[in-house]
Amino acid sequence: MPAQPAQTAPVTVLGLGLMGSALAAALLKAGHATTVWNRTASKTGPLAAQGATPADTARDAIEAAPLVIVCLTTNDHVRALLEPEATALKGRTVVNLTNGTPAQARELADWAAAHGITYVDGGIMAVPQMIATPGAYILYSGTDEAAFATHRETLSALADTKWVGTDPGLAALYDLSLLTGMYGMAMGVAQALALTESEGIPPRDFAPLLTDWVIAMAHGTIPGMAEGLATGQHLTDVSNLAMNRAAFPNFTSAFTEQGLRTDLFDPFQDLLDRAVEQGHGADGFSRLALLLKKD
Amino acid sequence: MPAQPAQTAPVTVLGLGLMGSALAAALLKAGHATTVWNRTASKTGPLAAQGATPADTARDAIEAAPLVIVCLTTNDHVRALLEPEATALKGRTVVNLTNGTPAQARELADWAAAHGITYVDGGIMAVPQMIATPGAYILYSGTDEAAFATHRETLSALADTKWVGTDPGLAALYDLSLLTGMYGMAMGVAQALALTESEGIPPRDFAPLLTDWVIAMAHGTIPGMAEGLATGQHLTDVSNLAMNRAAFPNFTSAFTEQGLRTDLFDPFQDLLDRAVEQGHGADGFSRLALLLKKD
Repeated sequence: MPAQPAQTAPVTVLGLGLMGSALAAALLKAGHATTVWNRTASKTGPLAAQGATPADTARDAIEAAPLVIVCLTTNDHVRALLEPEATALKGRTVVNLTNGTPAQARELADWAAAHGITYVDGGIMAVPQMIATPGAYILYSGTDEAAFATHRETLSALADTKWVGTDPGLAALYDLSLLTGMYGMAMGVAQALALTESEGIPPRDFAPLLTDWVIAMAHGTIPGMAEGLATGQHLTDVSNLAMNRAAFPNFTSAFTEQGLRTDLFDPFQDLLDRAVEQGHGADGFSRLALLLKKD
Repeated sequence: MPAQPAQTAPVTVLGLGLMGSALAAALLKAGHATTVWNRTASKTGPLAAQGATPADTARDAIEAAPLVIVCLTTNDHVRALLEPEATALKGRTVVNLTNGTPAQARELADWAAAHGITYVDGGIMAVPQMIATPGAYILYSGTDEAAFATHRETLSALADTKWVGTDPGLAALYDLSLLTGMYGMAMGVAQALALTESEGIPPRDFAPLLTDWVIAMAHGTIPGMAEGLATGQHLTDVSNLAMNRAAFPNFTSAFTEQGLRTDLFDPFQDLLDRAVEQGHGADGFSRLALLLKKD
């Protein structure tokens, strides 16, 4: 297919949930001829009003553009949708922005390669409301970096683009890793708010302290943990694992005394115990990442 | 005892571990006549060189100043040290900066009140290296706010002071709550670094992305969770519990596929499952804090 000026390059979006709809809207706003398809056709209405071309079938949508963005609920849905359309997809680039695992991305990439389809996997570091706003970015990976480069300007209408490598699983791996950090924080925040709530401390009074503290600790711990892993020297002059292990029963006791469950944090005590039992009590938190490997 | 000019008010510090030593050094630097005592007397040496007066016995140390700061390993040690000294402590103010639970603080406050001792409990939001540097603060609570006010200027030599209320357990509760937030984040960061490490992604490359993401998510989630708890309206227009529950198996699968343990995050899946099963799937993360209460 001939190259198109990036400003108006036609794009197809398959899947119009909250995220898919936000992606299509951002493309339309950037001036792209955007064809949209959704299993439930009524979802195309608001986008058509913004200038999108609704397609009757997925195949029609695919045939409308050299770049096909897919955003469904799961990669099982992606396979079910794309596999019957291999012929239509041949020679096109599929950018799959569906949440999934590295293994799923690699399987889809293998399937695509076997059918002459260029496959780029992506991980969206944003909620739909953040699409096309500053700070949002999408991680991309795939075997064909040149194909990504061809479409990079178009994709930049969605969010900042971050290419992370030619292993198709990498975008999902980065995405899951970043969200894992967020989920851990959310667990801590939920338990912290439960603890203050148990004593009637107004959450609006406590939240600013908690936000500031979590941010200070992110700055204070993440770079040092990365340094420990990079160098293999799990040093700390601040707070070693043995000290944290000794202090942690205070937390579990307080949870129990305040009428709270302890189950979110019991495995953390186990991890600290294991660290000390295996002789790593003098190490810093970076050691914990290594202890999360299966034996 | 007569009031002393705050700049030179005498202070006693009992317990000279890393933290106690940092506290005593900060008091000396601020010009306070500082008496120090430690069970292992050799710990007094470096402080004596900075101008501290070492005491031979805890009683001698207590009798040297109207303000007695205690910083030991546990509150069991605090009780064992202070109980035989009730007579010497009578009429003085004990500021206990030992890590502990709200219940322990309340018990110590009750014991102190029964012996005519003023008791203030404190929670240090800093590691020893951060004492007397910007950003460090100490939370205080106790039945006698006026006694705290008398010594506030002296205590401000250690770190910024935050009075949190007349329930003696509150400082420990705030302290444990903030650290709980930090521990959750550390769990997430450890698992995230284990995940990237499993694929050979250089930790120094990944750490800046992770730091930025955790900070963005702290800003993006904590105020909203507090608002949900404050209003009882656990709303979200971004990412509800049902969506997170559906996505979470991707995380556990990826951990397993990458050869990692899943145990730090299995209880989070259970919590999301429970939230949805109890009919809260459309709610935001603030609901989770309520689901951490024991049935």
